[in-house]
Amino acid sequence: MGYKLISTWKMSYRKMSEVKEMLKRKYSLQEIIEAVIMAVEDNPDFQSVGYGGLPNSEGIVELDAGYMDGDSLAFGAISGVRNIKNPILVASSLIKGKTNNYLTARGAEKYAKEKGFKSRRMLTEKAREKYQNRVKENSHDTICVIGRDLNGSMAVGVSTSGLFMKHPGRVGDSPIIGSGYYCDSQIGGAAATGIGEDIMRGCLSAAIVNYMRQGLNAQKACQEALFSYLKRVNNEPKAISLIALDKDGNYGACSTLPDFPFVILDENNQARLMVYRGQEKRIIEADENWINSYQGD
Amino acid sequence: MGYKLISTWKMSYRKMSEVKEMLKRKYSLQEIIEAVIMAVEDNPDFQSVGYGGLPNSEGIVELDAGYMDGDSLAFGAISGVRNIKNPILVASSLIKGKTNNYLTARGAEKYAKEKGFKSRRMLTEKAREKYQNRVKENSHDTICVIGRDLNGSMAVGVSTSGLFMKHPGRVGDSPIIGSGYYCDSQIGGAAATGIGEDIMRGCLSAAIVNYMRQGLNAQKACQEALFSYLKRVNNEPKAISLIALDKDGNYGACSTLPDFPFVILDENNQARLMVYRGQEKRIIEADENWINSYQGD
Repeated sequence: MGYKLISTWKMSYRKMSEVKEMLKRKYSLQEIIEAVIMAVEDNPDFQSVGYGGLPNSEGIVELDAGYMDGDSLAFGAISGVRNIKNPILVASSLIKGKTNNYLTARGAEKYAKEKGFKSRRMLTEKAREKYQNRVKENSHDTICVIGRDLNGSMAVGVSTSGLFMKHPGRVGDSPIIGSGYYCDSQIGGAAATGIGEDIMRGCLSAAIVNYMRQGLNAQKACQEALFSYLKRVNNEPKAISLIALDKDGNYGACSTLPDFPFVILDENNQARLMVYRGQEKRIIEADENWINSYQGD
Repeated sequence: MGYKLISTWKMSYRKMSEVKEMLKRKYSLQEIIEAVIMAVEDNPDFQSVGYGGLPNSEGIVELDAGYMDGDSLAFGAISGVRNIKNPILVASSLIKGKTNNYLTARGAEKYAKEKGFKSRRMLTEKAREKYQNRVKENSHDTICVIGRDLNGSMAVGVSTSGLFMKHPGRVGDSPIIGSGYYCDSQIGGAAATGIGEDIMRGCLSAAIVNYMRQGLNAQKACQEALFSYLKRVNNEPKAISLIALDKDGNYGACSTLPDFPFVILDENNQARLMVYRGQEKRIIEADENWINSYQGD
């Protein structure tokens, strides 16, 4: 079985296209996941992750991130942090401890400073203008990457700036193990993007992994987790998208959206942009027409 | 079926004994859960919850709490908050919104202040002395209460000051939906206490509810969730205790500890102190001998 990687949104496509080269240079799975996420964090054009992310109701960018190692089930996470250039690196560094794996706000910033992680003023001029003009934006696109290396080790990473105009201190699903992400190399990994509160109420990443534990492949597990949850909560949630990768290397995706783009590596380690089409409940490969008409990240 | 309530640790026994009176006075399930937890929060003798809780490595008490309504799957949670008298009340008030249900640190404190929740300097003289003398304490006992009212509505609440000497900003399992607590009135509820990081790695409350969804009763679901997880992580975790209540009113408890005390209501709404005995893998009712020899909360 080849190297496996799946990531959320079109915004991850460019860096996913460089994974083939990273593999030749013997990057580890953790390094690859971090690199894909950092590329999105560092890009000011993406307004829901890292630098350029839209601020909370006080005009302050507060960031969340999580990372989980599927071999040991170790995890690291931070929430509500300000002025940290790459939240994913702080989160993934926290998998090393037996305790203090999830740090929030002041304490997380103190840790990042002490450990020498780069700080950055995360509010761009473009984001500040959107805040001042209260531009209506449904910004809730989290970058999520799940991978399986050639030895069968799996991991997942996620990073987001959360909902635009959120209450200060609001934490979404992304840093929350079991909601924003979960990964067990013996079973598979899952991650979520969308309205975090709706994802948390269903604890959806744990739900997907649980369905995979029961024998469903990644695609069926995503569908079962999403559709059974939607039924339970009367189809209220309007923006939930899920990805998964099972231990056998099968990809899965599902969404409440008409179009949910995601990226996978094919058997030649080439990135391919795929789309889960909510109306048809099926996955297509994005063609030029689709790419030209797509408005989102 | 009668009124059902289960709570963690001997420290909840006194207030659980007053539930019978509260029921006569038509307290709602939420009010009862809040009352039991507040009694523990307000008691300075209990050094792992609320007032009198032991501080973090900087000598500051930081508190976590969560609440979930099993009918709507709505939840509220706060983490890393300072100087809030009753964290459970702030958490349970947050179930009302469609977003911003989980607030952390600065933002949570701001919310609590704006909404008029009582503040209090939470560090007692006794806790300060233990901090200054670095008294070795394994303080990680969370108060958790799960209930089912006569209409079949279920809910769960949890509150803790977390690990003594934790890193500033460290968040444990308690405010984390799916780890510290989960509740679905159509299935059952579960909650956890112990080393939060170990509980989060297994997402154990969601795991218990999932086993109940598959048809196991509360007791079997607790055992299956704990023992399968312990096997997966090579029996490393030394302090995990779990409680559950299924939709049919059955109680469940399980623990890695030799003795894990918890409290239930019997058919006459009387509180009974029970003990899960880890060596024997069975539950006994605490007698006078046991109570006199028990050293913990």
